[in-house]
Amino acid sequence: MIIGGARSGKSRHAEQCALDGGRQVIYVATAESRDGEMARRIAHHRERRPADWGCVEEPLHLAARLRELAAPDTCILVDCLTLWLSNLLFAGKAAAQAEAGEAIACPLFAGETAALIETLPQLPGRIILVSNEVGWGIVPMHPVSRLFADEQGRLNQRVAAVCDRVTLVAAGLPLTLKAPPKTA
Amino acid sequence: MIIGGARSGKSRHAEQCALDGGRQVIYVATAESRDGEMARRIAHHRERRPADWGCVEEPLHLAARLRELAAPDTCILVDCLTLWLSNLLFAGKAAAQAEAGEAIACPLFAGETAALIETLPQLPGRIILVSNEVGWGIVPMHPVSRLFADEQGRLNQRVAAVCDRVTLVAAGLPLTLKAPPKTA
Amino acid sequence: MIIGGARSGKSRHAEQCALDGGRQVIYVATAESRDGEMARRIAHHRERRPADWGCVEEPLHLAARLRELAAPDTCILVDCLTLWLSNLLFAGKAAAQAEAGEAIACPLFAGETAALIETLPQLPGRIILVSNEVGWGIVPMHPVSRLFADEQGRLNQRVAAVCDRVTLVAAGLPLTLKAPPKTA
Repeated sequence: MIIGGARSGKSRHAEQCALDGGRQVIYVATAESRDGEMARRIAHHRERRPADWGCVEEPLHLAARLRELAAPDTCILVDCLTLWLSNLLFAGKAAAQAEAGEAIACPLFAGETAALIETLPQLPGRIILVSNEVGWGIVPMHPVSRLFADEQGRLNQRVAAVCDRVTLVAAGLPLTLKAPPKTA
Repeated sequence: MIIGGARSGKSRHAEQCALDGGRQVIYVATAESRDGEMARRIAHHRERRPADWGCVEEPLHLAARLRELAAPDTCILVDCLTLWLSNLLFAGKAAAQAEAGEAIACPLFAGETAALIETLPQLPGRIILVSNEVGWGIVPMHPVSRLFADEQGRLNQRVAAVCDRVTLVAAGLPLTLKAPPKTA
Repeated sequence: MIIGGARSGKSRHAEQCALDGGRQVIYVATAESRDGEMARRIAHHRERRPADWGCVEEPLHLAARLRELAAPDTCILVDCLTLWLSNLLFAGKAAAQAEAGEAIACPLFAGETAALIETLPQLPGRIILVSNEVGWGIVPMHPVSRLFADEQGRLNQRVAAVCDRVTLVAAGLPLTLKAPPKTA
């Protein structure tokens, strides 16, 4: 798992990790290109990636897609959990509930995140997950932004707990937060 | 001292540290339950804590409360300095001064923070302080948010300077920023 | 290079590094004092600095200024790249382009940042650069804030790549992200 702020170099670091592994790489994009700004961001990422990487778009059902794609000789790079979370919260009406000041009851979001946490430890091959740190600023005024910051933080904790290695990236430089125990 | 972003797992890490110490734990809550969202956050924290922990609410006069509670066989867990700071800035009119574009002159805030910094090194037993990092985002547009970010950052620096151990938490994982020198 | 959030103690740490080096120090301020709040921030920084440090203001043409000032026995402390970036984006019309939803085409910004990256490795003496981390919060709603967060993140990556040492500061405490290889 690779976490960091926006424009921290976390995607680039993840791509380097995928290249270094020597496995066949499948890139799983969770973004949907909707407007000019997002289209430019996606193009900016795409032009960096090797042409022989597979590329799959999966905005919502990540666990099912990972079960389908994972294989012992494959490295799957998911970029990123933050857009996936955003897609779930908006598709599943949690954003609307937060806006209205209601308690959040969103089966799509709860089910998909639980499925990811349960699925990750069972997958063969290598999985690299990119996710944003978004809770290091002032608590946002808008209730949807607060919901998003809360759920992103909780998701990062839960995913980090089931990953072997967690790396924080700042200014393009990696800092290891969790590493597999060294084998003697 | 345990710092981190919102939903970074810092409270959970602090609770684990308190449990591991084997001392009697007193939990000092600085939050006041005012609305539905805050009440849900408080309940979310409370259901995690062991039933035999003492629990005290102290929104403002933290130094005096710590002097009263601290004892050699006791671990006091303060969660969190961020809400305490917010309570002081609003109770002491600093927030209103910032809103009006005036220089900040707030004796309550200045006195309470100075008292905490002076008191901390003198206390017996173990003190665990939880605080947020809030200055890693875009500078906020609202002057009260800027005041808050500035004072939270300064407070974290001053408290960290008088603590033996400072840990940064991200995605539930601790990173040591300051540790007591190893005794031979 | 010294990075960190707002009020993280990064300027103070940079000043201590400059003092420890034993060289003649020139402080390069990128800030322009325009309003009451900024004037107070600048005064807050100034009263901490030794009186024998040279001080130069350079809001825009940083690479040219560094080439002019750098010398083998000199330490130049630039505080900070964040205000310099902000000055460039506003002076060069990139902010206005972002506001209008246009693609960014800003020769001043592109030229000055490229000149800095090219110049840094060629300079004699010691250069300390202070820069903010601003991408660790919720993605800002305003397009100019998003442009700024993006370009600050990219700039930090590019500068970090050409610096010998990169230190992250939180709560006044330094954490090494990149260090020169130890010589035997």
